[in-house]
Amino acid sequence: MGVFTGAPEVAARLGDLAREIGGELIGSPERVVTRIAALHDADAQSIGFVASARFAARLQDCRAGCLIIAPAWREQALAWASTQASAAAGSGPVVGQVATEAASLIVCDDPYLAYARLSQWWQQHRAAPVAAGVHAHALIEEGATIHASASVGPFAFVARGASIGAHAVVGSHNHIGAGAQLGEGTVLKPRVSLLEACVLGAGCIVHSGAVIGADGFGFAPDQGRWVKIEQLGAVWIGDSVEIGANTCIDRGALDDTLIEEGVKIDNLVQIAHNVRVGAHTAFAGKAGVAGSARIGKYCTIGGAASILGHLELADHVHITACTVVSRSIRKSGLYSGSFPFDDNASWEKNAATLRQLHTLRDRLRALERKNKES
Amino acid sequence: MGVFTGAPEVAARLGDLAREIGGELIGSPERVVTRIAALHDADAQSIGFVASARFAARLQDCRAGCLIIAPAWREQALAWASTQASAAAGSGPVVGQVATEAASLIVCDDPYLAYARLSQWWQQHRAAPVAAGVHAHALIEEGATIHASASVGPFAFVARGASIGAHAVVGSHNHIGAGAQLGEGTVLKPRVSLLEACVLGAGCIVHSGAVIGADGFGFAPDQGRWVKIEQLGAVWIGDSVEIGANTCIDRGALDDTLIEEGVKIDNLVQIAHNVRVGAHTAFAGKAGVAGSARIGKYCTIGGAASILGHLELADHVHITACTVVSRSIRKSGLYSGSFPFDDNASWEKNAATLRQLHTLRDRLRALERKNKES
Amino acid sequence: MGVFTGAPEVAARLGDLAREIGGELIGSPERVVTRIAALHDADAQSIGFVASARFAARLQDCRAGCLIIAPAWREQALAWASTQASAAAGSGPVVGQVATEAASLIVCDDPYLAYARLSQWWQQHRAAPVAAGVHAHALIEEGATIHASASVGPFAFVARGASIGAHAVVGSHNHIGAGAQLGEGTVLKPRVSLLEACVLGAGCIVHSGAVIGADGFGFAPDQGRWVKIEQLGAVWIGDSVEIGANTCIDRGALDDTLIEEGVKIDNLVQIAHNVRVGAHTAFAGKAGVAGSARIGKYCTIGGAASILGHLELADHVHITACTVVSRSIRKSGLYSGSFPFDDNASWEKNAATLRQLHTLRDRLRALERKNKES
Repeated sequence: MGVFTGAPEVAARLGDLAREIGGELIGSPERVVTRIAALHDADAQSIGFVASARFAARLQDCRAGCLIIAPAWREQALAWASTQASAAAGSGPVVGQVATEAASLIVCDDPYLAYARLSQWWQQHRAAPVAAGVHAHALIEEGATIHASASVGPFAFVARGASIGAHAVVGSHNHIGAGAQLGEGTVLKPRVSLLEACVLGAGCIVHSGAVIGADGFGFAPDQGRWVKIEQLGAVWIGDSVEIGANTCIDRGALDDTLIEEGVKIDNLVQIAHNVRVGAHTAFAGKAGVAGSARIGKYCTIGGAASILGHLELADHVHITACTVVSRSIRKSGLYSGSFPFDDNASWEKNAATLRQLHTLRDRLRALERKNKES
Repeated sequence: MGVFTGAPEVAARLGDLAREIGGELIGSPERVVTRIAALHDADAQSIGFVASARFAARLQDCRAGCLIIAPAWREQALAWASTQASAAAGSGPVVGQVATEAASLIVCDDPYLAYARLSQWWQQHRAAPVAAGVHAHALIEEGATIHASASVGPFAFVARGASIGAHAVVGSHNHIGAGAQLGEGTVLKPRVSLLEACVLGAGCIVHSGAVIGADGFGFAPDQGRWVKIEQLGAVWIGDSVEIGANTCIDRGALDDTLIEEGVKIDNLVQIAHNVRVGAHTAFAGKAGVAGSARIGKYCTIGGAASILGHLELADHVHITACTVVSRSIRKSGLYSGSFPFDDNASWEKNAATLRQLHTLRDRLRALERKNKES
Repeated sequence: MGVFTGAPEVAARLGDLAREIGGELIGSPERVVTRIAALHDADAQSIGFVASARFAARLQDCRAGCLIIAPAWREQALAWASTQASAAAGSGPVVGQVATEAASLIVCDDPYLAYARLSQWWQQHRAAPVAAGVHAHALIEEGATIHASASVGPFAFVARGASIGAHAVVGSHNHIGAGAQLGEGTVLKPRVSLLEACVLGAGCIVHSGAVIGADGFGFAPDQGRWVKIEQLGAVWIGDSVEIGANTCIDRGALDDTLIEEGVKIDNLVQIAHNVRVGAHTAFAGKAGVAGSARIGKYCTIGGAASILGHLELADHVHITACTVVSRSIRKSGLYSGSFPFDDNASWEKNAATLRQLHTLRDRLRALERKNKES
């Protein structure tokens, strides 16, 4: 089950990998690994990483050929290497260089970050490069500008006035609206809508099904009917932003909806019109931000959390999953608010009582008064 | 940041705008504005609108060339115009006609509605009209009917038996299924699925990525397995309905899922099979309605709110964001039910106590009894 | 309203239907029905089904030509048939064979399951079969394998190394990535993305807008910035899985995201990277599962429910709609946790008190102590 197909194999020398992630190799630079693996799943052809002290303490069953570790875990890891080598040799204790040739280490300050860099190196070496040029089955309207190094996929449509930057990739079945702009190296996966006049910076990734620049949800009531407010702004997105599958970012009513550089947005997220998101903030899947909210820099918004309209969140605010943010948050910190689940019978009892909570409070107060008097 | 590109500029005479929105102009009809702006962001070339008394009281910093106001705010607005004109002239007080030529007013009963109408006028004057006709890269199956005034975009597919009304627009990469119908003037943005036999009325707008007519979620259990119930109904949508990006409206199991005229649905909303939504009801983003629920007319359903299956909501029911409606609501009114968020430490304490809420109630009751006895 | 168009009529003999669903016909096998209808909506040309004893007790107003019933409701149903026939004849009591020719019955063990089977038969008889072959407007890259009995729709793109099984259907505007695999008889509706190296088993259905194999949401923090972790795994999906419109299933970080056979997933559901879902589990609309969670077999996850990351759910766990599962669940059963909604004024009072719940608990405790002492 789960056999990965269709991608070329990677065979990586440990010496190259250590150099790539800037770590100290304890082992043979010529040794080759062929996959990155989780600790529980690693074999002698795998390189793994130890992301925390908790994992460092539980290495005994790990069969990786090489581990990326932090300096603090060096002793534990050397002991692990020795045990591994001994087991492999089927003999007495094996230590020192012989051990770390059997079970090697790469020491670096931040193994998780090293893993991220390693994953990028891996992807570059296994994925076929995207060919530059406009596919014969793509359609470019007159007046669109496509950089010679950019790639436009089959059944993509690029409207008049749009501009596709150097090394950018427009995936299959993309719609690039009139006057939209794609920065250098930005990649749109298949089936993305980047609608008229919306701007994406450099180095962005937009996943399949995302819609950037649909109309914000604006109507004026008129005797029970809704009169549409045309959305005259667009969407402006900075550099290095990633946008998940089927996520929606609406165009502004008058000004642009703004997503600053480095923001990361997961799948099925709703960003309403006029929202502003500060740099390097991240949204997990199914989160939502209602109209005109302003979210600071370096925030994290948990999955399925909702930020109501017109609120402001300071920088470095962290919202746990499924929380409903109903007031502005002026102070950085961690905020929560989901209902604690329970077995159904307990929940029903508690929920029924919850509906009467303020009467409980009143009854308690009455008792307290009575007690004081007596 | 946020420079809007790719759209022609609009230069509008105040006289024309006042006529368009049916207001009384206090100022020069020949004066020109070039954008609609929010009050804090307006300059002398902007027209703004004062949506409430709260804004009328805070005009001092507004630099708009023209403001749309309600009759009740006339005195305040004239004072504002005078101040603006004096500041611009750099002299003593400027009042009367001289003032309102520097800072003009349009007086009308409902400035927010006037803004909506103004936005529509603006959009019509800046957007290039969609050309009638079937794009050379679209594909129309034999037996589909396309009105001569309709427009079908590149890579759109219209299946046999489908019917596209006068002045309707089928965007790029649309899939119009067999026998589906599009009313007069209805606009489907790029990448919309209108599946077989589904019907959209006149004057509707459907945003990118929406799926109308996927199978409802119906299965019969059979010894632990799920046996599919084919969804034999379709989706029937009235006139003037707007449907947001990546929203899903499922086809009915036996009858049609019904959305009455004037309903407005935001992005990423789920409308399950057999649901009926009354006229002029609105759903904010990420809301959801489970199967066979019936929602009245003139309701508003807040963002991320959920209506459980088979429930009925009366007309004029308003549900606040993120509320879970778990019983039918027979009476119009405002209903709520989201967990109040807090800093994480406080939430944890309260959530832990909440799990024991019914025991608190029992203990309180015991105390009350004891107090009565003593 | 709700007229179904574009599909051929079905005229079905009761004898054929009884044989199809394996039931005992009480009535004439030659009698014809032309639609399946809900009890309240049925007429003499309709066949309906009685799904529970509750419905069996309320048959008096039902006008169906034939009803599918369970053996236990035989007496009630015969009485209903007699009443129906008498009313139709406009005479005195009609019983026996004469009655059941006017109002027939099919008796079988599980009428709801019989309805599911009947709906499938109906759909097969009214829907035009999908023609085998690659549409002239589809694009197959060199190195892709399409079975001769498979169908590929207009504007579909199938990349190199992909494999489309026998009788599989690739809908219009599909993107089938490099090396992706589609099992026998699997149907992708219009506008689906099955991204590189992802595998779908046999007999699956994927609805419009679904995205299978977008990148999981993985980043390592580096001095306030996010460094992308390339997602090197894929998605592996077993046989007989159904995936809803605009649902997203992300590829794994290192291994594959796994969905076992028979799983049913509704619309707008988010399945994050590395998740494993056991066989025959079902997810209602808007549900979400965060990264690396493991969900057992035969579970049901209610609409808009969220399962947080890295949790484990045992087999046969049932989660009610809108519940946030924040801890692993080791024991089968029914679990809940949504906030009880109320009219807004009551909710506000209760929510305000809820923020102080732990102080209520402390005050109660203090009173209890005082009472003990006194």
